[in-house]
Formats: sequence, C-alpha cells, structure tokens
Amino acid sequence: MDQYCHGVLRTELGLGTFEARLACTEGPPAPGTTLFDTQTGFAVRRWCPPLLGLEPHATPARYLARRRELGVLEAGRRLLRGSGITTYLVDTGLPGDLTGPGELACAAAAEAREIVRLELLAEQVADTSGTVESFLANLAEAVRAAAATAVAFTSVAGVRHGLALAPEPPGPGEVRAAAGRWLAARGAGGELSDPVLLRHVLWSAVASELPLQLHAGPGAPGARIDRTDPALLTDFVRATAGLGTDLVLLHGYPYHRHAAHLAGVFPHVYADSGAALVRTGARAAAVLAEILELAPFGKILFSSGAQGLPELHVVGAMLFREALDRVLGAWVAEGAWSPGDARRVAGLIAAGTAHRVYRLG
Amino acid sequence: MDQYCHGVLRTELGLGTFEARLACTEGPPAPGTTLFDTQTGFAVRRWCPPLLGLEPHATPARYLARRRELGVLEAGRRLLRGSGITTYLVDTGLPGDLTGPGELACAAAAEAREIVRLELLAEQVADTSGTVESFLANLAEAVRAAAATAVAFTSVAGVRHGLALAPEPPGPGEVRAAAGRWLAARGAGGELSDPVLLRHVLWSAVASELPLQLHAGPGAPGARIDRTDPALLTDFVRATAGLGTDLVLLHGYPYHRHAAHLAGVFPHVYADSGAALVRTGARAAAVLAEILELAPFGKILFSSGAQGLPELHVVGAMLFREALDRVLGAWVAEGAWSPGDARRVAGLIAAGTAHRVYRLG
Amino acid sequence: MDQYCHGVLRTELGLGTFEARLACTEGPPAPGTTLFDTQTGFAVRRWCPPLLGLEPHATPARYLARRRELGVLEAGRRLLRGSGITTYLVDTGLPGDLTGPGELACAAAAEAREIVRLELLAEQVADTSGTVESFLANLAEAVRAAAATAVAFTSVAGVRHGLALAPEPPGPGEVRAAAGRWLAARGAGGELSDPVLLRHVLWSAVASELPLQLHAGPGAPGARIDRTDPALLTDFVRATAGLGTDLVLLHGYPYHRHAAHLAGVFPHVYADSGAALVRTGARAAAVLAEILELAPFGKILFSSGAQGLPELHVVGAMLFREALDRVLGAWVAEGAWSPGDARRVAGLIAAGTAHRVYRLG
Repeated sequence: MDQYCHGVLRTELGLGTFEARLACTEGPPAPGTTLFDTQTGFAVRRWCPPLLGLEPHATPARYLARRRELGVLEAGRRLLRGSGITTYLVDTGLPGDLTGPGELACAAAAEAREIVRLELLAEQVADTSGTVESFLANLAEAVRAAAATAVAFTSVAGVRHGLALAPEPPGPGEVRAAAGRWLAARGAGGELSDPVLLRHVLWSAVASELPLQLHAGPGAPGARIDRTDPALLTDFVRATAGLGTDLVLLHGYPYHRHAAHLAGVFPHVYADSGAALVRTGARAAAVLAEILELAPFGKILFSSGAQGLPELHVVGAMLFREALDRVLGAWVAEGAWSPGDARRVAGLIAAGTAHRVYRLG
Repeated sequence: MDQYCHGVLRTELGLGTFEARLACTEGPPAPGTTLFDTQTGFAVRRWCPPLLGLEPHATPARYLARRRELGVLEAGRRLLRGSGITTYLVDTGLPGDLTGPGELACAAAAEAREIVRLELLAEQVADTSGTVESFLANLAEAVRAAAATAVAFTSVAGVRHGLALAPEPPGPGEVRAAAGRWLAARGAGGELSDPVLLRHVLWSAVASELPLQLHAGPGAPGARIDRTDPALLTDFVRATAGLGTDLVLLHGYPYHRHAAHLAGVFPHVYADSGAALVRTGARAAAVLAEILELAPFGKILFSSGAQGLPELHVVGAMLFREALDRVLGAWVAEGAWSPGDARRVAGLIAAGTAHRVYRLG
Repeated sequence: MDQYCHGVLRTELGLGTFEARLACTEGPPAPGTTLFDTQTGFAVRRWCPPLLGLEPHATPARYLARRRELGVLEAGRRLLRGSGITTYLVDTGLPGDLTGPGELACAAAAEAREIVRLELLAEQVADTSGTVESFLANLAEAVRAAAATAVAFTSVAGVRHGLALAPEPPGPGEVRAAAGRWLAARGAGGELSDPVLLRHVLWSAVASELPLQLHAGPGAPGARIDRTDPALLTDFVRATAGLGTDLVLLHGYPYHRHAAHLAGVFPHVYADSGAALVRTGARAAAVLAEILELAPFGKILFSSGAQGLPELHVVGAMLFREALDRVLGAWVAEGAWSPGDARRVAGLIAAGTAHRVYRLG
C-alpha cells in the first residue's frame, strides 16, 4: 500500500519535460549535466524500460521514444500495473493536470483513496468566503466534510514556514486577526503561509482524529534543509499526544533517524520509509536500514511519494521491495532475526500497519 | 569492561513490565504494536533465550515464562555470567529497586565499581542541608568524599536542561542565589534542573579530576533530540581542556559522529560506543563503524548502558563483540588494517582504554 | 584531478612532527594514545610504505626511518608520483614552508594550478595599504589580478566566523566602516575574521566568475562543528544563483548529505568528495556512497585536501579510487547501474567535471 503519492500527468512528455520531473530543483540542471544522472534517474532507467518492453538501462532518448510510441495512457497503465502497488493513498493537493484517485485507480487496476491537503483546502475556502467569520466557519465545515471521505490529512506547513511552529493551538482572537490580515492581502489562489493560520488548520485536522501526515526532511527546494528537521516537531508531537490522532512523518531523509526516534518515543507517531528511497536509488537498502534502527517495526509505513510520472510509483515500489528483501534477508542470514519475524515485519511495513492506521478494513 | 551501566531489578517481571523496560518512551506502545518489535526486543530474543536453555528467537511469552520458572535471581545470574563482562562500572543514581555494585558483582561473578551521579548527589545533600551555606559546603564535601571511592562522576545535565549550558563555571554569587531559589522552592527529593546549579556541580566534578561522564545524544524521551547533540558541548569541552579531567560522552547516537569528532579533536574527550548498539540491534556493526570514522581508536569505550534488565547487559556485550568482530574483520579481510592492529584496537576498545581512563590498575 | 590540496613540507620530519600532521587537533594526543591510531594513520601505513619499498602496515617508526633514509625530496617524489594524480589544484594560502604549485608539479611530474585564498589575499593587501580607500581599491585590483591567473578562489569564512553569514553583499558604507575598524585594530599579518569584510571578499570573488570553493563541515578544530554545517550556506547559495559563478562545497563531512542536497538543488553548486575520505579511511566507501545519494553524478568532485605530507595526497587518491571502484562495482554487480554508466560516472567524478568547472581544456 502506497500511503502517500500523487496522480500522474495526462500529457505526453518530451525528454526535457520528463527530466524536469525527476527532481525538485531551483532552475534547470547545470550546463553539461542532466537530472538523468542522479540516483532517481538511474533507478527509472533500471526498472521502467522492461515494463515497456525495453532492456534495463535503456538510454533516456530511447526510453522516451518508446513511451511516446505507446502513448501516455498505455505507458501509464503498464507502469502502474507493473509496480505491484494495490492501494494508492493520493494527495490531491498539488497543482497541475494530474489524475485524481479514481482515474489513478482505474489506470492501475487498483484501489485509491484521497488524502486532503490542508493548506489547499484553506485556500479554496478563502477563495469563496467573503469575511473572516465566514472563512473560519467554512473552513471548519470543510475540514469536517473532508474528514468524512478522506483517509488522511496532509500538511506542508514545514515546507511553507519551516517546522519550528509554536506547538500549541493559536487562540481564537489570534486566528481571527491572522485570517483578517491574510484575506485582505491575498488575491485569488494566494498561498497560505501565515504561521498562525498554518497552526490553526493543523489543530483543526488534529480535532478530526483522521491521521495527519506532516512533510518533514526536505522542504521547498531552495529552503534551508535544517528548517524541516522533524526534531523541530517534538513539542507539537508532545502537545498532540493522547488526543487520538496519529501523526505520520513523511520523507524524513536526511533526518530519517530523527523521524524514527520520534516514532520510537511517541505512541501516536509513525515514520514514512518510502520517498527517501526514490531519491537515493541504489542506496535504498542503506537508507531503509537506518530507519529500521530506532523506529519500532510496527511504526514504519511504505510510500512512493511519486508525483506526475508513473515511473516514480514504479521506482518507489521496486526500490522498497528490493531494499526490504535485502535488509531483512541479511539479518536473517546472520541469525539476528528469525525468518518468521522477518516475514511478519515485512508485511507490517508494506501494508499491515497502513491498513491499521488508515482504518482500511 | 562495561564502563557505564546500572543495576538490575530484584522483582519478578511479567510480560508487560518486562516490555516496558525495553525502551524509553512517552506512554505505552501504540495499540496493535509491542516494544518487542524493536531492534532491542529482537536482540534480546536472539541472545538471551539460549542462556536460559531456550532456542534463539523464542517468543516473548515463552521467554518470560522460562525466566519466571528460574526466578529473577537465578535468571539474572545466568544472564550476567553469560555476558562475558568482567567489570561493571555502575551508575547508582537511578531511582527504583536496583541492585548496587556489590550485589551486581556477586550475581555476575565479576568486579563492580561505583559511578556517582552528580545531580542525585546534590539532591541528597539538599535533603539534609538547612541553609544555602550548609548546602554548598556539604555539596563540596560530598563531591570530595565521592571522588575518594567512586571511579567516575556522571551527569544528566543534558537530559535535565539540554547541553547548551554556558561553558564557564558560574560565579560564587550566582551559585548562592540559584541555590537559595532552588532550596526555597523544592520539596524533599525535588529534582535539580537549574542551569546555574547544574554547571556548578559539573565544575565541582571537574575539580576532582575524576573522569566525568556526560549524557549526550538522546535526552529525556519526549525532549527535542537536537538539544542533546554533543556538538553543543564544544565550548564546555574547550573550557575544561588541560585541567586533568577526562570527559566521556555517553550514548551519542544519532549524533555519534559529532561525539567521535570531539574525541578526535580534544585530548581529554572519549566517546562511548556501547549503548547506541543496544538501541540499534541488527545495525550495531553499522553504527559502530560510524563511530570508528573520526574517533581515534584509543578514545573509544565500550558500555552496555543497561538498566533494570540483565538482558540488556547481555545484549550490550553480545552486540558489541559481534559488531567489533565484523567491522574489524572486514577491514582486515580487505587489507585496510593489519590483523595485529585489529587485535590491538579491539583490546583497547573492549577494556584497555577503560582501564587507563578509570585508573583500574 | 585533485581539485583541492596544499603543498608539502620541505623539511625532514621526525615521528612526533609527522604524527602531528595526521589530524587537526587541539593539543597533543592524550597520554597513552597516538594519532597513528586513527583511520588516517592506518591508511597512511597501508598505502605509503609500499611506495617507499616497505611492506604495507609497517610500523610508524620503521616508516619514518625509511622516509628519512630516502630524504624528504626523494620520498616526496616517490609518493606524489605513486598517487596517480595528474593535476593538482593548490590552495597557496596556508602558512608554513610548503611547496608552491610549480615545485609540487615538478616533484610529482604532474600539472599544478593555483587556488587563491581570499582571506590571505585581503590580509596581504591590508599589510601594504595605508588607508581604507587604498585598501578597498587594492583589494578589488588584487582579486581581479588573481582571477586572471588562478583557477579558483577559496574561502575559509566558515572556519573564521561560522557559515551563518548574512547572505547578501554588504553595502559600501558598511564595508568602509568595517575596513576602518579592522585596519585600525590589526597589526601586520592580523587575521581577517570580521563578518562584513568576509562577506565583502566573498562577493568580490563571486563577481569575478571564477569558481569559488567554500570550506564547510569541519571548521577550526576546537570550534562547534554545527557552525560550519553547509545547510547554513543555503541563503548565500540562493543569493548567488544565476550569476555565472560556481560554488564548490569543500569537505562537508559529517554534513556531507547536506552538501550533496545543495548540489542537487542548485545548478551552480558542487560537492567535494575527497577530503572526507582521508579522515575516515577504511570507511571511505561508506562515506562516498552517502555523498552519492543526493548529489547528481555530474556535481561531485574529487580532492585529497592534503596539506604538508605527500602521504596525504597518496591516501586521498588511493582511498578515493578504491572507494569509487567498490561502490560503483557493487551497484553494477547488483544490476542497479549499467557498467557503461558506472565507467562514465567514475570519469566525471575523478576528472571530467573538474575539467569543466575549472575550465581546464
């Protein structure tokens, strides 16, 4: 079960537009370099060409030609169905022409459920609310409504502002004042990055008791990476303990040991093991093993974190499966783990724990 | 030589009370999870059942049943004697019904020496001192007396306050004022967490020239882990250079590379390699190898960090021994180290350096 | 191509003076320990004795005796020529009796080019300028002149002040005031550590469009290591994006994953993979693999970082070559990379990218 991903693009891609989707960068690659020369690029070239009938490690040009030959729909179907993922939890809060959960499920012949991005929800409410009072009332209603259908909320508060947010819920007066300032200053579609309002939507989500996914580790590409260290979430985590809402720390890397620590200390915290593997490719087993140091084995969740390219869903799933096999297999071979325990833990990380946390039957 | 551990519990344990001792957490494990599903839990199930006559990886229920069948005393004896540890340095500053050095030595058929925890010493002095003047005089005398019999002092100043303490010793007026405030506010047994007094007891210990062990890496379970990064100790370390007192950085993980860096730069700093291994289990060799990057080989000390369960002494020793064999063995096999150097370094880390630092003949 | 190193000492060395050059420490090694018992010391004993006709892992005393028998010149020639390095980029800004690029090239039978250290350049200009106005004019002229002959600038602003410098160029009034204060206070040879002037020289170098190398990771030996975390450079990096000047983050370790992240996000940022390997010896492959997680493969540069001892150039080159072979070889064996890609990436890291960045034909 892919516990965090996005839809895929509906448009045909050329070499340049495909390449640009392989990483989050500030500006195009340096002259003389290509984003295909990254762990993600190499992993795509390893795992995806065979699903489209080419040999592994086909050149980017050859792969893109074959992809266009099949067409974006057929290539997407083959890739998604080849990933082995049977349930996708889809964050629908990204801009761009991406497939929604229904269309993704159909293409993949799989299940898909929605994750609601809190900041987009608030922005959409702001677009249609005339006053501070109506904005706040509509926001509360929108969160309630979303909680009835979505499987989780997700927040990019860390990406927008850094994770060093005051841990307690802001007071009603503070929230009204911040909403007034924000609504007065923004145009339609304007981004939510005010720290008081970010905290307000986070706490609204906590009250819903739906699991809340928090982006940590890398933030916006050009932002200081230490501003999204999950250790900065500690006080918020402590403030939300015992309220019945689980927190899922997404990404984590290069602070995945800190995320694992929080998952070890707090009963309601879970660590994502997936997206980091897509970024680190041939190093996936090493990174996964680092997550498995401190995180209890029932507190780790798989995701691909993929967005835009079905290749990233494939790579997320393949790297995870291979890394998990290699890491647990080595521990069994050394006698450190029993084979039965390894099988059981693999099942938990790949799907069992996600079923429990997201209450999916 | 286990250069840092605690005594073991004298009471029989059930499945739940045993499990609770496997990790430092905020609250019980999440519903549907167990602390046995951690690296520490798996390591206990690997190494301890055979010492009690069971197969490795016995289930927790089966292991606990066998442990109760033998009784806590006999099980403790078998476990401690099976650990291969011949000298225990025991921090006697934890609350709870734990065996002291003498009783531990007897059960383990080994040597044991005392490490005095500074904060508890100050609290005990405060319990019996009527005035600020008598508190400070009695504290100075208590530190002197402890230095005559103990092998080291240890401090949890980082756990209580974070490691970002002002590096210089506080002035006498400051200390008197802080002591006055603390004594007036506290009830009997009240914890020492005032930063001025924490610095005062640290500097009292430095003046004794006994080695001083500082907790770094993980702090209190719910506290921000970056507040106990040993890098924060740098200015204190520099302030204590050349005074004749060695500093031992305990735990370190996940900042063990920072602790190793300090051990590499400052002649009087040592890095603990032990407790991190108990937390990371099957990853012990990888974590030990990271410590061995920057720390000079004569500046690394083994410990189990065990508290309460003799199983943790066993796991600490077994994981360390296996990890050291594997890491150094691989370097010898690759030709990076000579076999003679590897044997010599293994001897230093396992016991030789601790004998020198703690002046144990 | 060694993209960052220094010259070698011209004087004969004894056991103690040689040992002191193996690490950057505060004070001599602890009694009972030696700096030969470090990863660097073991790597020197592995790789260098055979180049002087001894067996690997010869004792320090035996190695030093053989070195003196050959004489510093002949030993230096054999070592440098045995390193396999064909081009040295030499930072000439260290004090001490070190060979310059010409002499190094001659001893090594290789090419050598100069890297100009900005802080030393500013200090030399200050030594010969009478007024603030002449200092600033002469500094501008000196940077222009250096840019015409050197292949790069390097800065130790992080070592002098920490990397948390204000990211924007200081205004002219600020610079004049800071220069006035500094010139009035300093004696001849006085160090530049004023943050305004450090930023002024950095921005002067940026304007030259020559690549700018920034020391990150370890700073001065006794300084807090987190003050030189390359993540602190993020805002400066963003401020210099698109100006046509490449930034090269030197060292990085233990924050090499942060340096790799910046190289992945910003087109004009490159990560050094070399000096960290010399410090970590038998762990070089593991550290290099961590750099290869996030850094695009065309954004990584080899260096030895060697200073004073030609043994460090040897060890830098040997460890790098072996680590690269081992890491890429394992990925090819696992099927994660193709053999052709591995060969191509090895060529980029070892020399190709440096040729491009430093415009060396």
